[in-house]
Amino acid sequence: MIWRNLLNSFNSVKCSIHNPANVLLANNARYLSSAFVAGEPAGPEVKTAIPGPRSLAMLAEMKTIQISDAVQLFADYSKSIGNYLYDVDGNILLDVYTQISSVPLGYNHPELLDVLQDKENIRTFINRPALGVFPGENYPQRVYNSLLRVAPKGHTEVTTMACGSCSNENAYKAIFVWFRRKQRGDAPYTPEEETSCVMNQTPGVSDLTLLSFKGAFHGRTFGTLITTHTKPVHKLDIPTMDWPIGTFPRYKYPLEDFVRENEEEDRRCLAEVEELFERYNKRGKNVAGVVIEPIQSEGGDHHASPAFFQQLQRIAKKNGAALLIDEVQTGGGTTGEFWCHDHFNLEHPVDIVTYSKKMLVGGYFSLPEFRPREGYRIFNTWMGEPSKVVLLEKVIDVIKRDKLIENVKVTGDILLNGLKGFGKRYPNLVKNVRGRGTFCAFDCDSMAKRDQLVEQLKVEGVQTGGAGPVAVRLRPSLVFQPHHAAIFLDRLEKALHKMDNKV
Amino acid sequence: MIWRNLLNSFNSVKCSIHNPANVLLANNARYLSSAFVAGEPAGPEVKTAIPGPRSLAMLAEMKTIQISDAVQLFADYSKSIGNYLYDVDGNILLDVYTQISSVPLGYNHPELLDVLQDKENIRTFINRPALGVFPGENYPQRVYNSLLRVAPKGHTEVTTMACGSCSNENAYKAIFVWFRRKQRGDAPYTPEEETSCVMNQTPGVSDLTLLSFKGAFHGRTFGTLITTHTKPVHKLDIPTMDWPIGTFPRYKYPLEDFVRENEEEDRRCLAEVEELFERYNKRGKNVAGVVIEPIQSEGGDHHASPAFFQQLQRIAKKNGAALLIDEVQTGGGTTGEFWCHDHFNLEHPVDIVTYSKKMLVGGYFSLPEFRPREGYRIFNTWMGEPSKVVLLEKVIDVIKRDKLIENVKVTGDILLNGLKGFGKRYPNLVKNVRGRGTFCAFDCDSMAKRDQLVEQLKVEGVQTGGAGPVAVRLRPSLVFQPHHAAIFLDRLEKALHKMDNKV
Repeated sequence: MIWRNLLNSFNSVKCSIHNPANVLLANNARYLSSAFVAGEPAGPEVKTAIPGPRSLAMLAEMKTIQISDAVQLFADYSKSIGNYLYDVDGNILLDVYTQISSVPLGYNHPELLDVLQDKENIRTFINRPALGVFPGENYPQRVYNSLLRVAPKGHTEVTTMACGSCSNENAYKAIFVWFRRKQRGDAPYTPEEETSCVMNQTPGVSDLTLLSFKGAFHGRTFGTLITTHTKPVHKLDIPTMDWPIGTFPRYKYPLEDFVRENEEEDRRCLAEVEELFERYNKRGKNVAGVVIEPIQSEGGDHHASPAFFQQLQRIAKKNGAALLIDEVQTGGGTTGEFWCHDHFNLEHPVDIVTYSKKMLVGGYFSLPEFRPREGYRIFNTWMGEPSKVVLLEKVIDVIKRDKLIENVKVTGDILLNGLKGFGKRYPNLVKNVRGRGTFCAFDCDSMAKRDQLVEQLKVEGVQTGGAGPVAVRLRPSLVFQPHHAAIFLDRLEKALHKMDNKV
Repeated sequence: MIWRNLLNSFNSVKCSIHNPANVLLANNARYLSSAFVAGEPAGPEVKTAIPGPRSLAMLAEMKTIQISDAVQLFADYSKSIGNYLYDVDGNILLDVYTQISSVPLGYNHPELLDVLQDKENIRTFINRPALGVFPGENYPQRVYNSLLRVAPKGHTEVTTMACGSCSNENAYKAIFVWFRRKQRGDAPYTPEEETSCVMNQTPGVSDLTLLSFKGAFHGRTFGTLITTHTKPVHKLDIPTMDWPIGTFPRYKYPLEDFVRENEEEDRRCLAEVEELFERYNKRGKNVAGVVIEPIQSEGGDHHASPAFFQQLQRIAKKNGAALLIDEVQTGGGTTGEFWCHDHFNLEHPVDIVTYSKKMLVGGYFSLPEFRPREGYRIFNTWMGEPSKVVLLEKVIDVIKRDKLIENVKVTGDILLNGLKGFGKRYPNLVKNVRGRGTFCAFDCDSMAKRDQLVEQLKVEGVQTGGAGPVAVRLRPSLVFQPHHAAIFLDRLEKALHKMDNKV
């Protein structure tokens, strides 16, 4: 296996592999010859249980302040470097989860530290403006150099927000405003619309809906929560609305063995979408848009084919509805393209693409027809944050300079092939191996085993995370290189071996 | 008038007033003797129309990227200092609006610049964690030193969020979860609740409601927008829910001349709240909570009496509903108390208090009974941001050290008295003068005149903002001192005089 040869080379020369063992590695020597982030340790190191005693002491303090049941450990962000997360007990974990997929260049990247050495930049960090009213000098140029430099195909406009949920919330609003404008034509708002909306009444407010999918995750605020359908913990007790919910395909793996079945699954799901459009439109709850993840992440890393997305776009267009692709988790290069939907070869640009996490700031790209006509229609006090845009500018520079998306492709191949190999040897623990770039996942045959494996991986020095009921998801940063993949696969094999022997 | 004497002293000795002209000033010499932020200019300076040619050029660029109809000017945040906002055309504006009330210590406060000189701190700014899962070393201590140091009366728990809207969204969720738990008792969720909620169906999701008020503003995301009732521009076309909407008192000014009328107004509004509780509870749409601003800000700076709030708290308690006070705009010291509801002498601690803006980070304080039982119930990727907490820690230090809340009280008195004086001389342009601390406002007799006055003030070198249809709102930072108030009043008088002569 490639990764084993790679690991052997890595172990014999540390961080400097001059003798790649096969063609793939030889062709991609630049990703192997040195680390993108200097100063990383040779590998993970686990000294205590995790959480260790110092983490536990801080956790006890934290529990007096707020619910802390999701806390896994307290990290030492001064020492953490590149792909390695250091905790306060001296443990060093190879981080393939990266703060729920939100760290683009690993920890303490020297170029980002440099951004804060610049005196002018520092002022950006302490003078946060109301960006929609008083933007700072040359702010448009900053946006060109960062967000618009990586705009999805066909996009020239971008709006910034503070986080993923707000990005989707505001993108939903932009869709409703666009849809009602199409209905209203050039007519101004009627006095009745203006007075009724303020009191939550039609005709000022609308009965429009958005179509989302079972297993979808778009956020936990009220609007996004209407379209989130993963776990009860997010939804219980919260009032919501009756909006159409389609079925996202569930494929059989390996894909090459189930071509016919998976095509049939696409057809079934798309027919349901058509039926939902018809049903809700007929009931006067017009479907203004479709919101979908290119890969359902929190729901369990479910993929759908390019053909599914192409056809979905056609159905939306036929119904005069917008297509919103939520790239909050998939965007930023982690799938081997800057935007995951670049893999889908779509006929038309996507109407709206939302982003956050690895982009450091949230927001959305939208086609010009989605621009509202009035100021303050899409608005809040901060509208994102210029200091994040300053950091993102540097992140994009480094991605381009170090060809990190190429790195993701090469490393992703190693990762996926390694996982497929384990799939054969540990069929109950590694099932349905799937991924694009390093955005990889596999299923265990139960939630209990999945949770156990994530715990065992921590013992082996690897921080990863679950997704949906049975999946383990890998979300490394963009500086996760072949040698890191080799170390990860080696530790995963140890974990699998131990669990297999126990069972 | 105090402020005129003060201005004379200020003009004769600049920034160093040794000869306070009257008792009030003598008693508060520490707020007059020197500026809290060194390096401020002697006063505003307007060289071009606003926006000037450089702002207009940047605006043209900005318009190719996104809707920019709300942009007023492009600021130079490198040069801006203390209470003075510099724009890219070299204009210097006395800023009594401070980025929609979100700047606690003015621009480029030296203590905040120092925070970013510290190497350890810098790492906090580039390693943003998923706070709910992997908080950094000593994070609980940071929270004690910042947010909990200024916790509202009776509060020991705090949750952080990224912005004001998310703070309210999550506080609303906490209320619904709390209310359903009271109904459910210790019973676990039923399987039917768990499966139905994921598909947006009862019994898993609830039909609960929150009571809000006409003229209220709590945000523009879907959940908060249900409770926002200010302007059509925020609400048109967006689907919403039927939740109860009460009437926030509208007082007659000056208060001392309308005691009976205003008490009657309180009674009328409170009776309506009781009636709404009854009506919605009877319809099975139980009112789980009441959300209210201590001063309706975006809605037009409407105040209500302590007696109104005391009685509102009693009505909520009687109905088993939570009281949420939204201090996003009023919190942080600007009203002369750290939290505006400190003025109300309430019988019990408020159940939930939300904050953002001047606090740099969003979130809410909540009584222990509002803590959810399960992790991930109130959750998102970032859960606020530690770098903001680091800055807030310093902001609180400076507020305490420089006694800035005392400063707000002293300066607020000068401001309010000055405005009342203008109310007599310009009765069509300065009506209904009201305020707490420096959180002051007055009405013009039409929207056109208000807008004209805000423009004229800019010509005179003062950046302020409107609120509601006819109000001018003042939202200076906490380092806005008596001599700044004197300069403001002087410029306002010039503007009023010009407008009065034109009319």
